[in-house]
Amino acid sequence: MAKILTRLETTIHARKGGDAGSSYVAKLMGKGREKVAQKFGEEAVETIVAALTEDDAALVGEAADTLFHLLVLLAERDVRLADVLAELDRREGVSGLDEKAARKS
Amino acid sequence: MAKILTRLETTIHARKGGDAGSSYVAKLMGKGREKVAQKFGEEAVETIVAALTEDDAALVGEAADTLFHLLVLLAERDVRLADVLAELDRREGVSGLDEKAARKS
Amino acid sequence: MAKILTRLETTIHARKGGDAGSSYVAKLMGKGREKVAQKFGEEAVETIVAALTEDDAALVGEAADTLFHLLVLLAERDVRLADVLAELDRREGVSGLDEKAARKS
Amino acid sequence: MAKILTRLETTIHARKGGDAGSSYVAKLMGKGREKVAQKFGEEAVETIVAALTEDDAALVGEAADTLFHLLVLLAERDVRLADVLAELDRREGVSGLDEKAARKS
Repeated sequence: MAKILTRLETTIHARKGGDAGSSYVAKLMGKGREKVAQKFGEEAVETIVAALTEDDAALVGEAADTLFHLLVLLAERDVRLADVLAELDRREGVSGLDEKAARKS
Repeated sequence: MAKILTRLETTIHARKGGDAGSSYVAKLMGKGREKVAQKFGEEAVETIVAALTEDDAALVGEAADTLFHLLVLLAERDVRLADVLAELDRREGVSGLDEKAARKS
Repeated sequence: MAKILTRLETTIHARKGGDAGSSYVAKLMGKGREKVAQKFGEEAVETIVAALTEDDAALVGEAADTLFHLLVLLAERDVRLADVLAELDRREGVSGLDEKAARKS
Repeated sequence: MAKILTRLETTIHARKGGDAGSSYVAKLMGKGREKVAQKFGEEAVETIVAALTEDDAALVGEAADTLFHLLVLLAERDVRLADVLAELDRREGVSGLDEKAARKS
C-alpha cells in the first residue's frame, strides 16, 4: 500500500512542465515554488483544524491533501521522497538505540 | 523503502501511552492532541521556510520531521495511515481519468 | 492611524450574524469557527511566503490580510482586541525591566 | 490603547542590530529573516490551536505573541506598520462602498 507514495511521486514528476490545462499538478507548479509552498501550508493548516475539530473521514482527506502537496513541493525542488524516507529510517535506528539506552538507565 | 512509514506507524502506536521519560512520542502524546497538532504545524512551517530558502539536505530533514509528526497526529486520533494512502490511491484513479478526459477534449 | 484596528473591530462585530449575501465577514463567520481559524492560518502562511520571497507591497497586503483575519477570529471568540493590546503593554513593561536588568549584569 | 503597536514597533526597530545577550528581539533578528518568519508561523499555529481548543486568556496570549512577531517580521523587512494599517484603512473604505451597493441591489 505504501508504494502509492512512490507511484504518486513518479506521476507528479511526469506532470512537471506538462500542460496546465489538463493537469492540476502542472498548473500548480507552473505558478512557481512560492505557490506550491503556500498550497502545502494551507493543507497543513486544514489538517490541524480537522485533527482538532472534525471526524475521521475529514482528517483522512486533509492528511491525504497534505501528503500529496508535500510530494509536489519536494518534486518542485527536485528532492526525492526516497531521501526523506531514508532520513526517517536513519533516525528510527538512532532513536531506537536512544530509547533502549533510556530504558536501561 | 516506503515501508518505513508503515513501520514507523507501528512504532508510534506501540509508544502511545508509554513512558514519557524514555520516548519522545510518549512524551509528546502525553501533552494532548493540541500539542501534537501544534508540533505538526510547526514542522510544516519549517518545511515551507526550508523549501523557499534552504538547501536540499535541510528540506529533506524538515520534510522528514513533517511526515513523522503527521504520523504521530494520525496515531493520536487513531486514524490509520493505510486509510490516508487508500484515499490517495482512490484520487489518483479519479484524477487519472479526469486528465485522460481533459486530453481528449 | 492605529485607531483603524479598533474601528475595524467595531465593524466586524457589527457584521457578526449579519447578511452573508452583503458582507464578507458575515459569510465567513457563518461558516463557523473552524473556517475562520483556517482562513487566518492561510493568511499567515501567505505572509511567511511574502516575507521570504516577495516585494514590500505584497508583504504589506498579506500582513493586512493576516491582521484583518486575526480580528475576525478574535471577534468570533468574543475576545476583545483591547485585551490583546493590554497583554502586549504588560509584557513590554516586564521585558523593558528584564532588558534593563540584563544590561546591568 | 492601540498606540501600543506603534510604540512596540519603535522599540523593535531600536533593538534591531542590538545586543543579542540582553534583547530577545535582537537575538531573534540576529538569526536571520528565515527564523523570524518561522517564529511568526509558529505563533500563528498556536493561535489557531488556542482559538479552537483553549480559553480566552490563552487565546489573548497567543494573539499577542502573533501580533508581536508580525511586528518583528515587518521590522526585519523594514516595512512600516503604518503602511499595513493604511492598507486596512483603504480596504475598509472600498468594502464599505461595496456593502452599501450590495444592500441596495
